[in-house]
Amino acid sequence: MSTVAVEVKRIVNGVNVGDVEELVGAIQQNPQLASSRFRLTNKWINGGHNQSRISGFYSGGEDQQHLQEFVLEADEPPVLAGTDKGANPVEHLLNALAACLTTTLVYHAAVRGIEIRALEADVEGDIDLRGFLGLSNEVRRGFENIRVNFRVDTDAKNIELLKALSKLSPVFDTTQNGTNVGVSIARM
Amino acid sequence: MSTVAVEVKRIVNGVNVGDVEELVGAIQQNPQLASSRFRLTNKWINGGHNQSRISGFYSGGEDQQHLQEFVLEADEPPVLAGTDKGANPVEHLLNALAACLTTTLVYHAAVRGIEIRALEADVEGDIDLRGFLGLSNEVRRGFENIRVNFRVDTDAKNIELLKALSKLSPVFDTTQNGTNVGVSIARM
Repeated sequence: MSTVAVEVKRIVNGVNVGDVEELVGAIQQNPQLASSRFRLTNKWINGGHNQSRISGFYSGGEDQQHLQEFVLEADEPPVLAGTDKGANPVEHLLNALAACLTTTLVYHAAVRGIEIRALEADVEGDIDLRGFLGLSNEVRRGFENIRVNFRVDTDAKNIELLKALSKLSPVFDTTQNGTNVGVSIARM
Repeated sequence: MSTVAVEVKRIVNGVNVGDVEELVGAIQQNPQLASSRFRLTNKWINGGHNQSRISGFYSGGEDQQHLQEFVLEADEPPVLAGTDKGANPVEHLLNALAACLTTTLVYHAAVRGIEIRALEADVEGDIDLRGFLGLSNEVRRGFENIRVNFRVDTDAKNIELLKALSKLSPVFDTTQNGTNVGVSIARM
């Protein structure tokens, strides 16, 4: 008689739930594995155009490398004195928020066995440019409001739970509640 | 005798200062022109992979189109159960922050005639994944801290002013102080 080990991958919403459960188990054993540090370098090109490069991060107790380097372009549109070589910085922020809420919903649904068949979002944010331009102290520099409207193809009974799960999103928390940002500027 | 109109473009740091001054002048005449709305649509692809599309925005009292559509990919790395088809959402947030601070420094220096010859930033943010994973109520979901370290090639006398100008960045303000984010989820 022989024993045959059979690995059955449980994939929900395209997420390998076994991988997530393994990560959760490892962190429960050793909470320090949850301490992560994400990073990038940014280089100004010209005018409103600059470029970020992302290749490594720290997570799970060690330095990690992405499978590829990511290069992200930012610029301003011509009406804001740029050359439109990339989305502008506030659009990049909306992308970070949409992406994080989406991933949070998909992952947390997956580990609970909730099937999401499709998920889309419209995102918009209001900003008064007098803040950025230094023309008024009565309006803030950043977004006054951001709205994220999701449409999801899932069973009706899941909607309220998904609303609660969205609050686990790291970029939602950072954007909603703020975080300490230290900025230093030194000569090259 | 004839009069010849000569247009002299004043370009500082690659920014057409005349364009910025024209924008400022128009907004001072009619503050409503400063009200802007940026937007995107996001579509979940599979697992940790999703995609944002950015093509238009509202600014200067009318709908505007970018010169091209921007498509931004987000995913998670394999160690976080993804397929690494793009930077992850928290890395996208760091990119938005770096890009906005850089553009803010370059533009505000330009209108003050301050020459910036080169500008680079290292950005990193600390996050404890127990927040996202719902494993602890004692750690937050989002970034605990973000650090942005700039190196700039400019005259020494400009450094203190640049530090003050960085505070005008819309993404810095949003990230440091938070903003109201409304999330709705409806069935497709």
